[in-house]
This record gives sequence, structure tokens and C-alpha cells, in this order.
Amino acid sequence: MSRSIHNLSLTRRALTAASTPEVVARLREIVGAENVLIDPDKVEPYAQDALKEKFPPEAVVLPRTTEEMSEVLRLANERRFPVTARGGGVGYTGGAVPVEGGIVIGTDRMNRIREISPDNLYVITEPGVTTYALQQAVEAHGLFYPPDPSSYKTSFIGGNIAENAGGIRSAKYGVTKHYVIGLEVVTPTGEIIRTGGRTSKNVVGFDLTGLMCGSEGMLGIITEATLRLLPLPEATRTVRATFHTMREACACVPQFTRARVTPVACEVLDRNAIEAVESEFAFGIGAEAGALLLVAVDGAIEEVERAARVVERVVRAGGAYDVIRSETRDEEDRLWDVRRALSPSIKKFGTLKFNEDVVVPRSRVPDLIERVVDIGRRYETFVVNFGHLGDGNIHVNFMCDREDADAVRRARAAVGETFAVAVELGGTISGEHGIGYVKAPYLEMALGGTTIAAMKRIKDALDPHGILNPGKMFA
Amino acid sequence: MSRSIHNLSLTRRALTAASTPEVVARLREIVGAENVLIDPDKVEPYAQDALKEKFPPEAVVLPRTTEEMSEVLRLANERRFPVTARGGGVGYTGGAVPVEGGIVIGTDRMNRIREISPDNLYVITEPGVTTYALQQAVEAHGLFYPPDPSSYKTSFIGGNIAENAGGIRSAKYGVTKHYVIGLEVVTPTGEIIRTGGRTSKNVVGFDLTGLMCGSEGMLGIITEATLRLLPLPEATRTVRATFHTMREACACVPQFTRARVTPVACEVLDRNAIEAVESEFAFGIGAEAGALLLVAVDGAIEEVERAARVVERVVRAGGAYDVIRSETRDEEDRLWDVRRALSPSIKKFGTLKFNEDVVVPRSRVPDLIERVVDIGRRYETFVVNFGHLGDGNIHVNFMCDREDADAVRRARAAVGETFAVAVELGGTISGEHGIGYVKAPYLEMALGGTTIAAMKRIKDALDPHGILNPGKMFA
Repeated sequence: MSRSIHNLSLTRRALTAASTPEVVARLREIVGAENVLIDPDKVEPYAQDALKEKFPPEAVVLPRTTEEMSEVLRLANERRFPVTARGGGVGYTGGAVPVEGGIVIGTDRMNRIREISPDNLYVITEPGVTTYALQQAVEAHGLFYPPDPSSYKTSFIGGNIAENAGGIRSAKYGVTKHYVIGLEVVTPTGEIIRTGGRTSKNVVGFDLTGLMCGSEGMLGIITEATLRLLPLPEATRTVRATFHTMREACACVPQFTRARVTPVACEVLDRNAIEAVESEFAFGIGAEAGALLLVAVDGAIEEVERAARVVERVVRAGGAYDVIRSETRDEEDRLWDVRRALSPSIKKFGTLKFNEDVVVPRSRVPDLIERVVDIGRRYETFVVNFGHLGDGNIHVNFMCDREDADAVRRARAAVGETFAVAVELGGTISGEHGIGYVKAPYLEMALGGTTIAAMKRIKDALDPHGILNPGKMFA
Repeated sequence: MSRSIHNLSLTRRALTAASTPEVVARLREIVGAENVLIDPDKVEPYAQDALKEKFPPEAVVLPRTTEEMSEVLRLANERRFPVTARGGGVGYTGGAVPVEGGIVIGTDRMNRIREISPDNLYVITEPGVTTYALQQAVEAHGLFYPPDPSSYKTSFIGGNIAENAGGIRSAKYGVTKHYVIGLEVVTPTGEIIRTGGRTSKNVVGFDLTGLMCGSEGMLGIITEATLRLLPLPEATRTVRATFHTMREACACVPQFTRARVTPVACEVLDRNAIEAVESEFAFGIGAEAGALLLVAVDGAIEEVERAARVVERVVRAGGAYDVIRSETRDEEDRLWDVRRALSPSIKKFGTLKFNEDVVVPRSRVPDLIERVVDIGRRYETFVVNFGHLGDGNIHVNFMCDREDADAVRRARAAVGETFAVAVELGGTISGEHGIGYVKAPYLEMALGGTTIAAMKRIKDALDPHGILNPGKMFA
């Protein structure tokens, strides 16, 4: 591939020093011959992420230890080849994809949970553990790791941290960075540093832990993480409510706050989203539906019962004409089927999905969706909006045919306009997915040149040779 | 003063370029003559913080706007004089004190709350608003800003952010950085940058917002902050419990977690602390008391009643022999009198208080306190321990006579040993107060040289001339 659908200015460069026999031999010495992949078939799975644009690495290196990782980085600095770290490889902006070639470091083999401390409410883990495996492991101790990106079954915790992953529960519990209290990191130049520690309070030096969260693998590679845990909530309840209009649905959100309820999840589907799932799965949501809300609350049993009744009262008062409140875990699970049906339902509208996760102050969501629907109409591109209404983070999905160059061009233009609208409404271009190579051309629109310059100074200070994940974030 | 009690290696340098008539004239042009203080009497209040060590600035500059602040910083870079930003000036590690001279920028006049958005759960504020004023303002809208450093009536929100202030509620709600979603910052070289925004989800570029939190005024000066808010909890209840031993009291904490209760506050007083408040105020806590717990819960009325009963059951099962559970706001307030009595009660034990805020994984608190009591004994220094048991953040107060050089020397040695013990127990040297000039000599003990080197690279990248708050953090 010579040109990216998602970032047209990107063209793949020539081979780097990573392809030289001496470097390959040295990599084999460091991690063992069987842990350096150069065969095209074996490298292939490491060439792309959820976007399915292929940028094959020259080699894949699979270290087991921090020391091996450090040696690989030192070699990369010595011989000046690019290094891109990869977790589960399920991102939407290409953070784990080697757009400038060089090697990919897979964290697949660094997959042990090292310690779970119920008494001190932390877990220490290697980066290659899936979010799901981590959640299951701590829940066995009655503990709770709240961040839950929808990729949780396949994403790695190291990738979650590097991308500062969000998810459905963030309206109440915040995002990944709010749970990271300590890291071991290999810096771009190959030093091993420790940031933070095992306590959630820690003000010793600059907050490098925070800086690493969401740094998209450009400032260091995470080799160990200490994550803060909470007690596992006793129960959850969900209310599903159908409205005639998006404005009615959105107007309920501040009413939850006024009733002193903070939903753990507050998801919304717009008219197109509802039509898509109805046409595929027939949930029985009427054609007059303009918006559907899924509101979950959690806590102690008595508390969730009370909170769910408050939510029901608020949505009914707010104009919902079809309201279901779960009373059991099974009922709740069925209510969420609508949300889970979304991705499979919209596939038929195009082989290429521009899944953009803009975010606006939540009161501006109705304006955002109106504007996006209009953009879709003008560019003759089918668009589905859904997402995390509780924190204003809406997934705008423009659908088109990957082989239809004009349709792709129109969808790209629609994406650009959507970003501009999000910024205009007081929001920004990404709430969850990050920048990667995909959104790099829009960074200046969101941040302005002075702020970007400060970011670049930090990048240059920590990565003087530009080794780590080049071609990302900065256009 | 030529030598600091708290950091003996510190000696005040000669006057800087800030004292030259041209610079003073230029400063007066920028902010108005009445807002440049050089008279020793007027400068005096800006010379110290809670430590009461005086480092008078050569001038105090009181800008009103971000643009004025930016111009002052540009001038400082041009003429190369140190600039130290100051909020309420109530820190414990000298973060706001100009140890290398130059000017102090007071944020006193930047004291307006710009917007409170109940619908979007944020407040936008200038840095010179006190934490208390901000809390009062948002509570009038039924909203809640959780961070509550004990200095909240006098500390400024800008200082809270620069120091990443903690407080009593952090066991449940986290610390200041968990609430900062957007900043306007003047960089050390005088550029104005915006970081983050008005949404709690935001993954656009490196997390400079997080980096600024706790950067102790060394990476930029905050001129505006956007803070995330929560709905104000309906009620709180407190349980006060007296134990024979510290181990019994501490053993209750994981039991709260097991009972799925996360107290909003979980404060502990050790034997010396109890004796101190008893001797001064006679609360009627018996001489057999080895530890006192204050546990607060918050939430909806029904919920707090239930949670308070759970707390009572846990502490009784854990060996508490005197338990009081508040049933009204007034009763609750009286239970907290013991905690408030601490500072006034320990004054009589010395004119100089080394108030150190070490933090350890909470299960190690009994070990920490045993070791600290032994350290106090060996150095013949009276020591009082109390603090935030819920997150392992203990305030260790060594008391001595400021004029007794040998007593001061012994107390300093006791502090150094305490830091080493905290690190040995898996914790660190500061949970709330930061490093400043006071703890700079101990930074390497806590972090190691490689991590410090990475921090210094970031400092140098953003502040090439070392203008902002020199003499802090790095020994």
C-alpha cells in the first residue's frame, strides 16, 4: 500500500536499518531467535489494527522481560530504526501500526498478573494482559477495575494505558488514567524508569505516570503497571427509554444530576442507529423512535433499586414513551442487547466505517448530532450516531464502500467537518481513540500551534532520535 | 537568613536582574505601578509559606490577566531573572517561596469564577480563588468539588493544582488532578497554551493537563482552570471508634472494602496524638486508647444510614471499645472536633513542627507508625502521627524548639530516617505536600537517578533558561 485511506499524506518509506542482517542477528540474541518474526506470514498479524490498513513491520520482536525491551530500544537508538509498541492491536487510530517501518515490539509474552492486593486495593500487572482477564482476576477477589473500552476482550492493559482508554462506565468512574498509580517504563532511549508507586497519593516529582497515559506509545513503552482498584459494586440495574426526539433524551441527563444520581453508564442511540438495529434484529422499537437511552446505575442492592426508580421517574417526566426497568441481571442483560447489536447492524451500510469519537460538553450533544446528520446528508454518506451521552462522547460512524473512491472522499470530508463542529461546540476531536496517524492532520484544529509546540518539545526531550512510534500525532 | 532549617544546603544568592531599575520600570508598565511591590514591608507577606522561613522576593508582581502574566514571563526570559508563582502561600514544602530571589507573581487579583455549568458539570475559574470559595460557589448549584486540603480556607485553587493537593476525602474521591480537565497555562518562556478542555474525556495529544498538576510551579503558571464537578451528596455520617492498639484500628480498613463500603474519609490518630488533644481539650477519651478512627460515609440518606451501620459493625468486630455513630449533622460535627483539635494541641510540644506527609500502602501503616515512634524515641524528639488511613497517607509531626540547634538537628535526622522507612515499606516521601526546596535532598532516595533525569529533561525542554521556580525539587 502506498497511500492511506485515513491519512492521505502518509506514504510508506524505504526499508530501515531494522532489516539489516546484523540488526536481525542482534535482536535474536536479545530475545531468542524464536521471538523475532520476519517471515511475511508471521509478521502480517502485526501490520494493522481495527482500521485494517496494512503497514507490515520489517520485524516483530517479542520480549519477555523489561531488560530485553531496554536492550532492543538501545539497539534501535544506536542503529536508528523506528520502534512501535503494540498491545492487542485493536485501536482505531493506528497507534500500534508501524507507518514508518522498523520493528514492532509485541507485548504478547509479557502477560502475567504479578500481584493483586485486596488490602491495599491495587493490582500489579504486565502490559500484555487483556483488560477482560484483568477484570476477571480482580473480580475473583471482590474487586473492581472500572475502565471498560468496548474492545476489552482483546485489548491489552498496556495499550489501554498508552491510549488512555475510556468506555461505557466513564461517566461515573472516569477513564484509564484515573486508575494508573504506578508504571515501569522503558524510555525511548532505552532507560528503565519507575513512575508513581503503589499508593494513590503520590506527589514526588513531575507526574510522569500521568504523562505516559495517553502518550500513544511515543514517550515510552510500559512494561509494568500498578492499577488502583475499588470494591466491586453489589448490583447494577438498567433503564431503557425510548423518546421521540434526541433533544428530549439529552435533556434528561442534567435531571439525573439534579436528582443526585450519577449513572455508571448513560448510552444513547440516534434515529439511524435505532433503524439499523431494528432492521437487523427487530427489538420492537417503533418507527417513531427518535432516540433511545440506556441508563445503568450501580451500588448496593437497596441503593440501585432506589436509583433505578429515580431514573425511571426522570425519563418518564422527560417524555420517554416506552420505558423498561430491569429487575434482574438477566433482564438487564437483554436490555443491553440493543447496544451490542449496533456494530453488526451497521456493517451492511458500507465496507468502510469511519468511526470517530468526538466529544462535546454533554449539553451540546443534540446540536452535535443535528449538525452531523446534516453533514451526512450533504455528503451523501450514511451516518450513525451513538455513544456515551453521560460524558458527551459520541461515536459518529460514517459508512461507505472501501472500493468507491468518491464515496471515501466524501466520507473523509464529512469527518473533517464533524471535527470542526465538535471543536466549535466547545469539544474536541477524540474522547477515546486518540490521534495516531489517522487524526494527525486535525491536531492543529483542536489544539493550536503553541500547545503542539510544547508537546513536541517534550517528545524531543525524551526521544532525541525520534525512535519511538514515528509518524503519529504530529502531522 | 543565610541557611535554611529545612534544607541546609540552601543559601540565598545575590540580587538578580529583577532588582534593576529598568526591569522594575518595565514590570510597572506591564501590570500598573500599584501592582508591583518592592517596599520591604509590602513584599514581606510574600516571603514565606506555612514553614515560616523567609526568602523575600526582590519584587512582587500582581497581574490581572493572562496576557500580563505572559509579558512578565517574556521579560524574565529576556533579562534572566527567577520567577516564582504564588497562590495562597500556605504550602509545607516551599513551592511558592523564591529561594533564589527574583520576583514572586501573586495570583491574588486573578480571583474570579468565570462559569459554573450544572448541565455539564464543570466550573471555569481563575487561579486566585480560594478552594473554600470555589466549593461554596458550586455547592450553591447543588454541585460538589471533592478535593479538600486542610488549608482549603486559605489555599488558592491554582496552588492546589500546582501541588496536586489531596485532603481528607481522597480515599473515596481521589486528589486534585482527578478533577482538572482543562487549563490555560503561561509556559516558562511566556507562551500561552491551552490544555484539555471542557470535557472529562479528551485524548488529543499528550496529557499536558496532567503534567501541570503537581508540577509545583516549575513547568508553567496556571491562569485558568476547568474543573470537573459531581452532584453534591445528600448526606454524610461519621463513626468515631477508639481502639486499644493501632493494629486493631488499621485492620478494620480492608474490612470496610470487604463490606463494599468506601468511606469518604478514614482518619486515624495515634496514641501521642490522642494524648495531645486530651491534655488540651479533654474529650473524655480514656488513657488506654491506642488509636482513634474517624470514618465518614456519604451518599443518599438511606445509603449513608446503612453504610454507617456497616462501619459501626466492622469497628466493633475489630475491637473498638468506644464507638459513637452520628445521627445528625451536629453530632457529626462534634465528632470531628477531635481531628480539628490536633494542630492547636501539638503546638505546645515545640515551636518548630516538621510536618511530613509520607504515604505507604495502607496495610503497612501500623509498621510505619511503630517505626516512626521508635525513631522519635531514639532521637529524643516528640512525634505525633495522624492522617488519612484510607489511602495510607500519614502526617508524621516531629516537634522541637526552633532555637535549639541540637534538637533541630535531631528532628531533621528523624525526618530523614522516616522517609527511608516509608520508601522501604513500599511507599514514598510525599502524598500531599510535594517536594519544593524542603524535600529536594530526599528526591533521589524516592525516585532514583534515572527517573529524575527524565524529569529534568522535561523541565529543560519547557524552561531552557531555568526561569520558573528555580531551586526546587531537584537538589
